[in-house]
Amino acid sequence: MQREMLMAEKIRNIVMKLSYDGTRYDGWQRQGNTKNTIQGKLESLLSRLLKEPIDIHGSGRTDAGVHAAGQVANFLTHSEMSVKEMLQNINHYLPEDIAALELWEAQGRFHSRLNAQLKHYRYRILNSATPNVFAHRYLCRLEEELDLDAMKAAAAYCLGKHDFKSFCANKHMKKSTVRRIENLTITREGEELLLDFYGNGFLYHMARILTGTIIEVGLHKRSADSVPGIFAAKKREAAGFTAPAQGLCLMEVFY
Amino acid sequence: MQREMLMAEKIRNIVMKLSYDGTRYDGWQRQGNTKNTIQGKLESLLSRLLKEPIDIHGSGRTDAGVHAAGQVANFLTHSEMSVKEMLQNINHYLPEDIAALELWEAQGRFHSRLNAQLKHYRYRILNSATPNVFAHRYLCRLEEELDLDAMKAAAAYCLGKHDFKSFCANKHMKKSTVRRIENLTITREGEELLLDFYGNGFLYHMARILTGTIIEVGLHKRSADSVPGIFAAKKREAAGFTAPAQGLCLMEVFY
Repeated sequence: MQREMLMAEKIRNIVMKLSYDGTRYDGWQRQGNTKNTIQGKLESLLSRLLKEPIDIHGSGRTDAGVHAAGQVANFLTHSEMSVKEMLQNINHYLPEDIAALELWEAQGRFHSRLNAQLKHYRYRILNSATPNVFAHRYLCRLEEELDLDAMKAAAAYCLGKHDFKSFCANKHMKKSTVRRIENLTITREGEELLLDFYGNGFLYHMARILTGTIIEVGLHKRSADSVPGIFAAKKREAAGFTAPAQGLCLMEVFY
Repeated sequence: MQREMLMAEKIRNIVMKLSYDGTRYDGWQRQGNTKNTIQGKLESLLSRLLKEPIDIHGSGRTDAGVHAAGQVANFLTHSEMSVKEMLQNINHYLPEDIAALELWEAQGRFHSRLNAQLKHYRYRILNSATPNVFAHRYLCRLEEELDLDAMKAAAAYCLGKHDFKSFCANKHMKKSTVRRIENLTITREGEELLLDFYGNGFLYHMARILTGTIIEVGLHKRSADSVPGIFAAKKREAAGFTAPAQGLCLMEVFY
């Protein structure tokens, strides 16, 4: 017993705050054949650096092409390397489109996914006939006029606790599809429309299908009042299109 | 004579304000073998669109990898297509990293290079140990501490009319290397240092060699007081390194 406690004490739980440009990657999650994932890049670097196999737990998966300004992940290690040295190595050896912003040692059993209370996702729409050459990787551009008031009315129907089955691209989801959206704001900033989602969890493609549906309301292809019917249908087909991945960014995870 | 005047009246002089992300291109100027230039892309599109060979005159060349937020160019055409339609076509058919911001018809003999009075170039340095994953294509990152006061002192020596021969990468330049820098400011914005150059003309690599030299002063590799000696030497070897292209952006051309 004494011995086990000593062993356990030697295991450190390291938390990372990460940002990445998802353009070149096949999403967050390491997959069977491809190493071209954010998780895969980090695990392979950290395993070499810390000289033991490292498994990284992210707060959640981001799809291929989706970005993160504040993804959170953690891993366990026997290594005694300082978090400062780890941070320097990560930023030195990873490509410029993945960055570790902060590293710290967690107290106790912190798990980046299980302890997450709230996530903030932002979808950026450039509502302009002119491309933004410096940010086109992070925007979805729409030339057509968008009815902001109608979009806000549609967003209001999404607030609170709902079964988001119609807004989930995983048709064989066996677990609960009930989630809570605490806040969903739509703001115009110059030529951009920002959709800010704050929720306790997001299903597969949920933020993008909500965005696509709200865009269709903004284009008057469907009415804001049709949203409650989409929830009631509990079918993916009832909702709007899946907005492109590149406009979406995981901004922050709250614990 | 009468007939010539009528012919001349049918020729329109179209001016474009352009922005581009230079990362993927071999610079502004069309070259013998490569079509992978901004000028080349625009000329080939406009020639097809307006059904006649189009020669575009830029306000100046930008190097491979250098960006533009407000490059100005003009061309002559017999086409009667409205500038609005031209603008739409350019933004529709060109890739998302080149954009036409405005098009208008010039009065008289406007020439984007010959009439340019002043140009504003900005060099962005990210002075941080952490990459900016969303802007790394537009920044030069330096982790070392930079002495801002020393950099400002070095910049002050560059103001006004000088022979910039030491800051010109073209060793066989036969024309005058005298230019005037109206203003050169260095500003800290968060973790970024912005070098804003306003000048009546810039020699080949001039903004980047000035930046490299000022960075060396910021790193205490040379003193601010050494700058007058660099001008006096009239040799490229006397100045500092050529800062990477990606940090540089042509912001605006004044007429």
